[in-house]
Amino acid sequence: MSRKEFRDLASPEAAREAIDSLSLEGGIDRVELEDARGRVLVARLDAELDVPGFDRASLDGYALRARDTFGADEADPARLEVVGAVHAGEEPTIDLEAGQAVEISTGAVMPSGADAMVPVERTDRVEPRSTDSANGDAVSETAEDGDEVLIRTSVAPGDNVMFAGADVAAGERALGPGTTITPRDIGLLSALGVDEVPVRAKPRVGIVSTGDELVRPGGDLDSERGEIYDVNSYTIAAGVEDAGGEAVLYPHAGDDQDEMERVLREAADECDLVLSSGSTSASAVDVIYRIIEEQGELLLHGVSVKPGKPMLVGRLESSAYVGLPGYPVSAMMVFRTFVAPAIRKAAGLAAPKAATVSGRMARSERYAEGRLRLMPVGLVTSGPSEPAHESAGVDGDGKTLVYPVDKGSGATTSLAEADGVVTVDPETDYLEEGESVTVDLFSPDVQPPTLLGVGEDDPTMNRLLDGLENPRYLSVGSRPAVRRLREGVPDVAVIAGPLERALEAEEIGRWSREWGLVVRPGNPQELEGLAELVDRDLRFVNRTTDSGLRSSLEAAVDDLAADRGRDRQELIAAIDGFDLGLRAHESPARKVIAGDADAGVGLRATADRLNLGFVPLGDQPVRVFANPDRTAKESVQELAAALEEPPTEH
Amino acid sequence: MSRKEFRDLASPEAAREAIDSLSLEGGIDRVELEDARGRVLVARLDAELDVPGFDRASLDGYALRARDTFGADEADPARLEVVGAVHAGEEPTIDLEAGQAVEISTGAVMPSGADAMVPVERTDRVEPRSTDSANGDAVSETAEDGDEVLIRTSVAPGDNVMFAGADVAAGERALGPGTTITPRDIGLLSALGVDEVPVRAKPRVGIVSTGDELVRPGGDLDSERGEIYDVNSYTIAAGVEDAGGEAVLYPHAGDDQDEMERVLREAADECDLVLSSGSTSASAVDVIYRIIEEQGELLLHGVSVKPGKPMLVGRLESSAYVGLPGYPVSAMMVFRTFVAPAIRKAAGLAAPKAATVSGRMARSERYAEGRLRLMPVGLVTSGPSEPAHESAGVDGDGKTLVYPVDKGSGATTSLAEADGVVTVDPETDYLEEGESVTVDLFSPDVQPPTLLGVGEDDPTMNRLLDGLENPRYLSVGSRPAVRRLREGVPDVAVIAGPLERALEAEEIGRWSREWGLVVRPGNPQELEGLAELVDRDLRFVNRTTDSGLRSSLEAAVDDLAADRGRDRQELIAAIDGFDLGLRAHESPARKVIAGDADAGVGLRATADRLNLGFVPLGDQPVRVFANPDRTAKESVQELAAALEEPPTEH
Repeated sequence: MSRKEFRDLASPEAAREAIDSLSLEGGIDRVELEDARGRVLVARLDAELDVPGFDRASLDGYALRARDTFGADEADPARLEVVGAVHAGEEPTIDLEAGQAVEISTGAVMPSGADAMVPVERTDRVEPRSTDSANGDAVSETAEDGDEVLIRTSVAPGDNVMFAGADVAAGERALGPGTTITPRDIGLLSALGVDEVPVRAKPRVGIVSTGDELVRPGGDLDSERGEIYDVNSYTIAAGVEDAGGEAVLYPHAGDDQDEMERVLREAADECDLVLSSGSTSASAVDVIYRIIEEQGELLLHGVSVKPGKPMLVGRLESSAYVGLPGYPVSAMMVFRTFVAPAIRKAAGLAAPKAATVSGRMARSERYAEGRLRLMPVGLVTSGPSEPAHESAGVDGDGKTLVYPVDKGSGATTSLAEADGVVTVDPETDYLEEGESVTVDLFSPDVQPPTLLGVGEDDPTMNRLLDGLENPRYLSVGSRPAVRRLREGVPDVAVIAGPLERALEAEEIGRWSREWGLVVRPGNPQELEGLAELVDRDLRFVNRTTDSGLRSSLEAAVDDLAADRGRDRQELIAAIDGFDLGLRAHESPARKVIAGDADAGVGLRATADRLNLGFVPLGDQPVRVFANPDRTAKESVQELAAALEEPPTEH
Repeated sequence: MSRKEFRDLASPEAAREAIDSLSLEGGIDRVELEDARGRVLVARLDAELDVPGFDRASLDGYALRARDTFGADEADPARLEVVGAVHAGEEPTIDLEAGQAVEISTGAVMPSGADAMVPVERTDRVEPRSTDSANGDAVSETAEDGDEVLIRTSVAPGDNVMFAGADVAAGERALGPGTTITPRDIGLLSALGVDEVPVRAKPRVGIVSTGDELVRPGGDLDSERGEIYDVNSYTIAAGVEDAGGEAVLYPHAGDDQDEMERVLREAADECDLVLSSGSTSASAVDVIYRIIEEQGELLLHGVSVKPGKPMLVGRLESSAYVGLPGYPVSAMMVFRTFVAPAIRKAAGLAAPKAATVSGRMARSERYAEGRLRLMPVGLVTSGPSEPAHESAGVDGDGKTLVYPVDKGSGATTSLAEADGVVTVDPETDYLEEGESVTVDLFSPDVQPPTLLGVGEDDPTMNRLLDGLENPRYLSVGSRPAVRRLREGVPDVAVIAGPLERALEAEEIGRWSREWGLVVRPGNPQELEGLAELVDRDLRFVNRTTDSGLRSSLEAAVDDLAADRGRDRQELIAAIDGFDLGLRAHESPARKVIAGDADAGVGLRATADRLNLGFVPLGDQPVRVFANPDRTAKESVQELAAALEEPPTEH
């Protein structure tokens, strides 16, 4: 088997430059004002009119000539004749003369002849019938010839009047090119009567996902054939939209060259940028490589970064092209680091505010491949209670611990358990525990978890977690949880079944759960207990040794061996499938449903939930232990309080 | 005229509590995965399947039994029979036995009987025909009985295999309730095959804008009748969407009670929250007040905050109701402070990261009304060049100056010139120049301007500004610009016309502009100069005394008076409209277009742009002066560099 090798890896800087050299920009859109929020103005916008368009009363009161009020005060008010009224939205018909006043409401046009106004609070109408008026109409009716008003203050010309153009003047520069339109800008545009603005078109980004094994979410999956759901398409699409682009999903191309070429050309024709991703198979990568090299222009192949080595950068027809790695975590990391900034720039958006956190490595990390490493990490705060939302983990006070998140190169989901990225330069091959690192958060909105729990997967624990704000729980199993708690990273560990040795940690709560054999609905094979797995010809499915269920099962086998006076290994050898350990607590039950097994180890809760039969073998304790350094942490105390009411399984 | 007075103003805390007591929550939406970004999950989502769903090869290579490789190394490879091949998306048909290997590609299903795999790099196919295979199909054809492979390393069971459920295990808690869905979460949901998720419905917020004088942007405005564009509707709608709500605009209600009641009821019926806003007229406010008090429930009327005193909080039918002040700046400030947090909460979104800036007051500010003050402010950095985007103004190093933005209570647009808000408590009646204050930015995305300019409105300056990144320019006129530069707030001041006295500031550039009289197209009245304004019966429109155009005009009048040996006041008195000063540099021209004047002072550039006639009276210099403390500032230097090529008017 021969493969394309990456002999001369480009530097990350060269990759950035190659992508910067591509043109991703779309054209110009004209959008209505109500759709303008967040869009980027392409040209300067000048005011085409004065705001306000007329001299406008700033308050309710009386319009008058300022000189008629000179010398007036509370003791010696000026007395003016009220010759009419003008309300907002009315054209004044009066031409005011000396000694006269016009009742005016806020926002109304100042009548001709008036040069100032006095607020109603500093006046008294001298006709008694005016005092019972409660609304504008009534007031309007009272404003007849013969009324008079006492003005108890003096004003200068222009007082309480907003002159035409005082807010925005016709011809004034209103918004500059490149402005990202905020609600406040929409206020300005509204005032100017603008109902449509020219904005940068969002760069159209076509996403071509390849691979015969991929099925779109929602479709039927055939795991026997090795099918998996397509993770990259929707994830990259969401990333494109986050970066200000418009994502266009193309139908899956298989690994066939003609089909792939047809889809890539269609996407290149319709989009400013085409991203391919999806299949990890060397054949698909080779096919795409060939298409870009032969039919387009290949600028770069292979970058000295991990993850991201197999990145391609080039052009196809008039479109830019970037080939992302197939593994979802790699694809997202490369997208985020190299592609998203280019999309933002093409969209005219400013680089997002750097959102970084300083922290200490929670454990040492070795890596020596000589490539720039983009290391996804999770955060946990080691300090006592802090405001949950605003600063948890986002401080530089040494309370933030940083741990690498890595579920293996095939993992699709690790980024959902990560908060950001530590960039490790190629020369660094070892990060010490306690070493200070800087984490780039995935976005300024990232809220690091308030609680980090690890341990057994358990339905009761899941419900308890639902009651906490923004917890993170890694269901690694009971045995790894013990190890991780000893290493000091998580806040709490959840351990099911027997403990091999005492833990130096505070137990903050426990409950008990019923475990046993999950069997077909109605237990048609009439299993009664563990003995029959040994004695009868039944196919069994176990859990991995990490699991507390496995520990309890092994203890039960020991008991049975002791009862029978036989060696435990003999019994184990007699159980068909004892060594077949599945990681997930529901997986044995699902094997039973699929007909691949007669019985699996599991919980009554699982059997009930999946409508399966259940043969009880015992109760096991589930214990929650707090990290001794974190007992004062707010979220740990909240969990402890929730555990005081003994949780019940249901 | 009697009005509803606010005798017992509620505290801001009481207003927050009243709004919190309302229920704004919508129901549950089911959205497709591609629309799920940014939405908030309503319930916990557990994995319904294992990811991967099968034991999966992590690399391209050979699947085999680990024990067959024990002891193998480069010097002494193990030799295995190749019995077939399996690719991603294929169901393996082979049952592997001892001594056998199966060619396998990344992501393919491990064949039965194999427990580990070896990457292709550590193997050699011993049949020569295998080396020319370049893609999967070709390799597949070579994998026939009889081929052999040398394995140059030893592996342990499980090596290079990702077991079923290793990424996500069926039954595992995948995402908790309340999760705001990120692209990374979309990756997890995709992997689980989920194509639809239950999310919180966005709170529906109805916006009812009232006032006979309001016209929707895009409509025709009759300024004579005092009509103005409706600023609040679209602005508040954008604010609602920013806060995670869905905005619904209702048609304008006039000030008529029946009509207003009908619209309010319709909105209350269809929405979770109704916001009224728009008219500032006391009558409209009174009508709404009565409707809520009589037909709904009024919780609060009047809050001790500035702006925002006339806020109403209540219920109408099953909807929550908040009445916002009519003035746009007040409406937005109240919306932002009291309503947006409630919408965010109802939408299930976390409070946004606090984005604050420390700064010093650029000038003193007096305020003594005993209410909490929400003071919109602009920012300017006083230090030398800093990275333009990331930290300009967002530092706590004392380089950030803060100045209140206030164009008067009727201003609709001041917020577009502000960066954030300083909250001043009721006991503080004076802020000293240099006093330290904390600014809440309008959003974490706010980019304070790189350059703050003030001065004359000028077309050349507008073009220069277009070439700078994110400048702010306040066209206050030449005379106020001189004062502001002396006070030390702006970076640069742009002064047109004669200077009354020398400025202690560095002139960094200048150009000249032609000014004169803007007249009707073709100059039908055959004006030739200033003298005719004095001698003939012509209606003239002037600019305000703030303007450099006015200064040049006054100098020209002085010259004419000297020529004629007459007093300047006599000449001024003879010009009909000399004292009618308009603020905007285009307004006199627009008065000419409207037929309200025969001539206005203005620029040739303005006349040309508006296709009007022009009678030149002279050239005036436009000079750009830098604040002496800011000459080293990056943006000032950029502007100075741009000014080195003498700008030309066009």
